[in-house]
Amino acid sequence: MECAKVFLAAELRGHSTHGVIRIGDYFKLWEAGRINTKPNVRIIHETPSTAVVNGDGTIGMIPAKFSMELAIKKAKDVGTGWVSTNNSCNFGIAGYYAMMALEHDMIGITMTNASPLVAPTFSADALLGTNPIAIAIPAKNQPPFIADFATTPINRGKFTMAAKKGETIGMGFAQDKQGNPSEDPTILEKGGSMLPLGGDRIHGSHKGYCLGAIVDIFSAVFSGANFGPFVPPMVAYLPLLDSKVGEGLGHFFGAMRIDAFQEADVFKSRMDLWIETFRKAKPAVGQTKVLIPGDPEREREVIIMAEGIELIPQVEADLKLVADKLGLTFG
Amino acid sequence: MECAKVFLAAELRGHSTHGVIRIGDYFKLWEAGRINTKPNVRIIHETPSTAVVNGDGTIGMIPAKFSMELAIKKAKDVGTGWVSTNNSCNFGIAGYYAMMALEHDMIGITMTNASPLVAPTFSADALLGTNPIAIAIPAKNQPPFIADFATTPINRGKFTMAAKKGETIGMGFAQDKQGNPSEDPTILEKGGSMLPLGGDRIHGSHKGYCLGAIVDIFSAVFSGANFGPFVPPMVAYLPLLDSKVGEGLGHFFGAMRIDAFQEADVFKSRMDLWIETFRKAKPAVGQTKVLIPGDPEREREVIIMAEGIELIPQVEADLKLVADKLGLTFG
Repeated sequence: MECAKVFLAAELRGHSTHGVIRIGDYFKLWEAGRINTKPNVRIIHETPSTAVVNGDGTIGMIPAKFSMELAIKKAKDVGTGWVSTNNSCNFGIAGYYAMMALEHDMIGITMTNASPLVAPTFSADALLGTNPIAIAIPAKNQPPFIADFATTPINRGKFTMAAKKGETIGMGFAQDKQGNPSEDPTILEKGGSMLPLGGDRIHGSHKGYCLGAIVDIFSAVFSGANFGPFVPPMVAYLPLLDSKVGEGLGHFFGAMRIDAFQEADVFKSRMDLWIETFRKAKPAVGQTKVLIPGDPEREREVIIMAEGIELIPQVEADLKLVADKLGLTFG
Repeated sequence: MECAKVFLAAELRGHSTHGVIRIGDYFKLWEAGRINTKPNVRIIHETPSTAVVNGDGTIGMIPAKFSMELAIKKAKDVGTGWVSTNNSCNFGIAGYYAMMALEHDMIGITMTNASPLVAPTFSADALLGTNPIAIAIPAKNQPPFIADFATTPINRGKFTMAAKKGETIGMGFAQDKQGNPSEDPTILEKGGSMLPLGGDRIHGSHKGYCLGAIVDIFSAVFSGANFGPFVPPMVAYLPLLDSKVGEGLGHFFGAMRIDAFQEADVFKSRMDLWIETFRKAKPAVGQTKVLIPGDPEREREVIIMAEGIELIPQVEADLKLVADKLGLTFG
């Protein structure tokens, strides 16, 4: 099933914060009646190169795959395809859907908004999610260029990790509920916020805020989903918000046929040259090589394929509980 | 003429580093025979939603306006339009072209690559330009959302300013030619590089690197322009490079009809609500308000319209020289 594939892709690429650790959360959302298991995922508006999809309140992977396939179909017809999706929830890793375009000799783009955790520049309040952007670009003999990143310096998992180790998170990542800089790894539970990419105004946090805002607008204002502080929480232990401005959360998908710009073989050879040029750059003092976006995940995948996926005891217990409730055998 | 409008827009929006200060540079490029004054700007490849434009080696404003108008026309036909442009040079401020979409009830997007000044994460060499991204999104009663930012924490002008004042630039902005962090405002002339948005790896510089790389690939790999370290210098006192991988530098333009997703009036009302929600956020300690992208430029424009454009003596001398050589009256 599609959801299992997305969880597995997250684990293999080393993004275990988006892997099987989330199955327990989705299960609890389902138990709370907050996931529609008989959805009618459908197109509600379209032009030759665009569409809006209604995810009908189901688990995010289903409308996400439907929407990316639709973007790819439109790109086949008119060169590019762009789909904004409402009434969805968390879809796992954004890179999974962007990468679906590669086998069609297309560039794939995926964005999603998320529950508010990030304070815009000069704001004490968290109004944006970590709103990731993923782009996958095919090459010829080189592996593809795959960028998949939150529009914050670090993801939420780094806070949890630092708290567990009894360390601070360092400066440039978070603020307290008044907007003062904070190194406390538990500051998010105390009403604090994450900072946008850039950290503070001097170091360009207004640019990270712009990126998060663009993801929010493309995912939710285009589609009619909830935006900014109105995005519903994706865990069952947090209540739904009193006010809403749309349906569920929103995603945005793009597919661009490379031969809509250059003959596919020429483009892919040029990407090989781009990648080789960057790989050959002189490393900075103390570094061994310059990486291409996608390299760290590929290196991680080789290790995980050899050593297996490590489950921490808490996740194992969660999965066992879900399996028991569903009458499945675990382990 | 189009070029004058772009220079003026830069001055009015407070981006004087992209304003009339550049006229001297363009004039010298023209004197050196590096700008084609009888260009045949033309479409060399297209699909219903995409095109590649050849700028024929002329000043960047001309192919940029041509390409953005083409993107808008394609968006009218099929919902969105995407144009990648080669054989161009510096086009002024990216925001100017993105904003052309607003009057058509469209979102406008502009990117451009630029001469290498920025070192990717872990690289000692500068391989990317400051590669800006501009996005203009219309609202109804609120002014439009206009983001226009380099994919670096600061622009080159901040280095010049710090050097003139005898100050350091602070940490998180630059490195020396071995890749060691540097606060020296003259480090770029000593073989150093600017850092991508994020600053260092811990604070997410690999994400700034991804953004700069995406701008480079969309502007130059799609179009057949020079990419990365092969982008030609935009000042006549630097020689052209020995090796090239394409023609001139590259830009990328997008136009998205908002009613290709939502009825235009509904979308614009939702943007008003988005903007009002963010404006109403509680300011952080020591701040007076949360800004919407485009606000600082609008505030600057009011001041400049009242007080006029301030010309520093060096720029005034440059303009007088150009006027004299062309037999024009200055001042």
